Amino acid sequence: MAELVGNVLVGQSGGPTSVINASVAGIINEALNHECIEEIYGALNGVLGILQEDLIDLAAESQQQIRALRHTPGAALGTCRYKLKSQADFDRVLDVFKAHNIRYFFYIGGNDSQDTADKISKLAQQQGYELRVIGVPKTIDNDLPITDHTPGYASAAKYVATSVREVACDNEAMGQGDLVSIIEVMGRSAGWIAAGAALAKRKDHPHDPPHLILLPEIAFNQEKVLEDVRRVLKREKYCLIVVAEGLIDQDGNYLAANAQTDAFGHAQLGGAGDALAEILGQNLPGVKVRVAKPGILQRCAAHAGSKTDADEAFLAGEAAVEAAIRGETDKMVTLLRGDGEQYTTETGLAPLSEVANSVKKLPREWINEDGVSMNFQFLRYAQPLIQGETVVPHDNGVPVFARLEKVRVEKLLPAREG
Amino acid sequence: MAELVGNVLVGQSGGPTSVINASVAGIINEALNHECIEEIYGALNGVLGILQEDLIDLAAESQQQIRALRHTPGAALGTCRYKLKSQADFDRVLDVFKAHNIRYFFYIGGNDSQDTADKISKLAQQQGYELRVIGVPKTIDNDLPITDHTPGYASAAKYVATSVREVACDNEAMGQGDLVSIIEVMGRSAGWIAAGAALAKRKDHPHDPPHLILLPEIAFNQEKVLEDVRRVLKREKYCLIVVAEGLIDQDGNYLAANAQTDAFGHAQLGGAGDALAEILGQNLPGVKVRVAKPGILQRCAAHAGSKTDADEAFLAGEAAVEAAIRGETDKMVTLLRGDGEQYTTETGLAPLSEVANSVKKLPREWINEDGVSMNFQFLRYAQPLIQGETVVPHDNGVPVFARLEKVRVEKLLPAREG
Repeated sequence: MAELVGNVLVGQSGGPTSVINASVAGIINEALNHECIEEIYGALNGVLGILQEDLIDLAAESQQQIRALRHTPGAALGTCRYKLKSQADFDRVLDVFKAHNIRYFFYIGGNDSQDTADKISKLAQQQGYELRVIGVPKTIDNDLPITDHTPGYASAAKYVATSVREVACDNEAMGQGDLVSIIEVMGRSAGWIAAGAALAKRKDHPHDPPHLILLPEIAFNQEKVLEDVRRVLKREKYCLIVVAEGLIDQDGNYLAANAQTDAFGHAQLGGAGDALAEILGQNLPGVKVRVAKPGILQRCAAHAGSKTDADEAFLAGEAAVEAAIRGETDKMVTLLRGDGEQYTTETGLAPLSEVANSVKKLPREWINEDGVSMNFQFLRYAQPLIQGETVVPHDNGVPVFARLEKVRVEKLLPAREG
Repeated sequence: MAELVGNVLVGQSGGPTSVINASVAGIINEALNHECIEEIYGALNGVLGILQEDLIDLAAESQQQIRALRHTPGAALGTCRYKLKSQADFDRVLDVFKAHNIRYFFYIGGNDSQDTADKISKLAQQQGYELRVIGVPKTIDNDLPITDHTPGYASAAKYVATSVREVACDNEAMGQGDLVSIIEVMGRSAGWIAAGAALAKRKDHPHDPPHLILLPEIAFNQEKVLEDVRRVLKREKYCLIVVAEGLIDQDGNYLAANAQTDAFGHAQLGGAGDALAEILGQNLPGVKVRVAKPGILQRCAAHAGSKTDADEAFLAGEAAVEAAIRGETDKMVTLLRGDGEQYTTETGLAPLSEVANSVKKLPREWINEDGVSMNFQFLRYAQPLIQGETVVPHDNGVPVFARLEKVRVEKLLPAREG
């Protein structure tokens, strides 16, 4: 494989996570090792920034700030949910790449983003423009296929498990058989994050909170849940429930479908907790029901993040560059679990097209018979991922995060049409 | 003052905080220094445990667990919202005290709890039973008078400020002039916690998030808020709003008063965020509005707690015992701020009756003219309180908290009547 000399472009896409910036740091770190890489650019707001030729010079950032990316939530380059639509969009991307001699493109994102990367890669091949495209996985939803798990998931799970342990201390002190706490967590179509709450249980303490985990994979059965709650209240004095936002009823409708949500004028989810509270309030007289909805906090709580997760996100960034230098293209980095007793991580590669078009579900056989708790297979899978605590420096009592200078790269093309 | 020989009883009352257990640790720690104290008992679930003679032997707990109380949220002894009602209740309390030779009673709680302690103290005096009663302040609401601030508040404020910094990273990456994030925080009648979000701003960066703080002290003016949000969206690309649950409109009604909340069948607050989202969604077309409601998480997030707060809670516990040993009674420990440039804490005492019957409001003059941000007087007050990070040990990726053995003290009285 002949050495390909040129510039790197990094972009971030989709919803941010606690560790997506660690992947950027990994890419920069590894890119600096290779002389065939001349410049390291970042695209502001993903493909939007490419279309608008809004590029920044990442090599001009201080080492201090790049290092701080390893514990900074959000997406330091900015992100977008824009989908490249027209041929004109794709052509414009290639024009920008050519103008800036971009030969290495690293796109950090979920399914949609990997699909975009795939299309850009194929277009470059068609046009005979040598470009190496490597995707870096990212999503708190953990729904990317092939990779054992996805950077961003573990920190969300750790945050939820931590919150469960803390809320348990509070509720245990307050409960007299009459207190239900509901924590609504993210997870539209899969219950990975809700399942992660099970990590709050001590080994061999199945009655530890969370007492019920309501997953999108198990249709909501009101009578059974009421019975479960009554049983737990009797045994534990309080009942702590973790519910995924995407909980559905037996007709396949979201439990969230209440009038209030509709009034917002958009189909945004996030009402399962309130809907459940209403049901419990109406059916369990004298029981006090509280709902917490950490919402976006669970995908950006770097201060409670998993060190393993941040380290793996960094590793995935490094691996992307190494693969591209080796001549790989049109692939996404995957995380692989070593075979030994001790948890180890290696990286692999998967074709972008295979990643883009499928979704990893929470295996049904990892959910216990009762439908509201996770078995040892899930715990064996998830426990290693949340080990270690991200250390976030504080100044004046609050966390300090990276702030990039964002030195603009000079535009070389006329402004985009339309 | 003659030495009073006898036993200690500690109780916790009202809503838990991240640091109420640190006060228990401080009481035990100091009580062990005094030979006139023979036994150190805890009342399970506050006055309820006293009525039922449910006492535990705190001296029998391991030193390890008592030390762990310094970072354990919730209320390790259990708490209650029960108010002593009848003369029979009060007489029963005294009977239990006499039966167990309780001569030192330390009650950790907010206004209501200090009122209870006051009444018990006065009854003992009437009956000629020598008892020293010292209250220890506790509440995330920071509304106790006389004391400069209340243990529990700073950790809640730090958690909120930390969350604002993190959500800001996320929103800054996502916003294109069309994103509003609302974080609803606790605070029924006073905006202390919401105000604490201002601690997320860097010095001399007034445009840092939170962009708007909506306080119960400032009646909600829809037109003004819409204008504020539009202006921030234009300038910052996103708008981060912190709203207190107790936000009221110009007629003095809670903004939370929506149909859904009423359907729960109780007047529980916590809908200001959703109500505001609805208003913004209806009036700002094309703007995406997200609501996070950390709820109970903000009063138990010890993993993001203030070390200053936990240390002061411990100190307040120690000071309570010292005062009682000196012969003080019918007082609550207060925190006093030293006069110097450097923040220092000392403790004082205030009559329980004065604490019980008043509430400390957020001073109007600490709120800026704009009504949605805090001025330097608030920052000078609050900043020292959130300094230092509570270190919570982790095991297997999640925080480990104290678990008391709760060795029961033998009951000496017949069961309570009724």
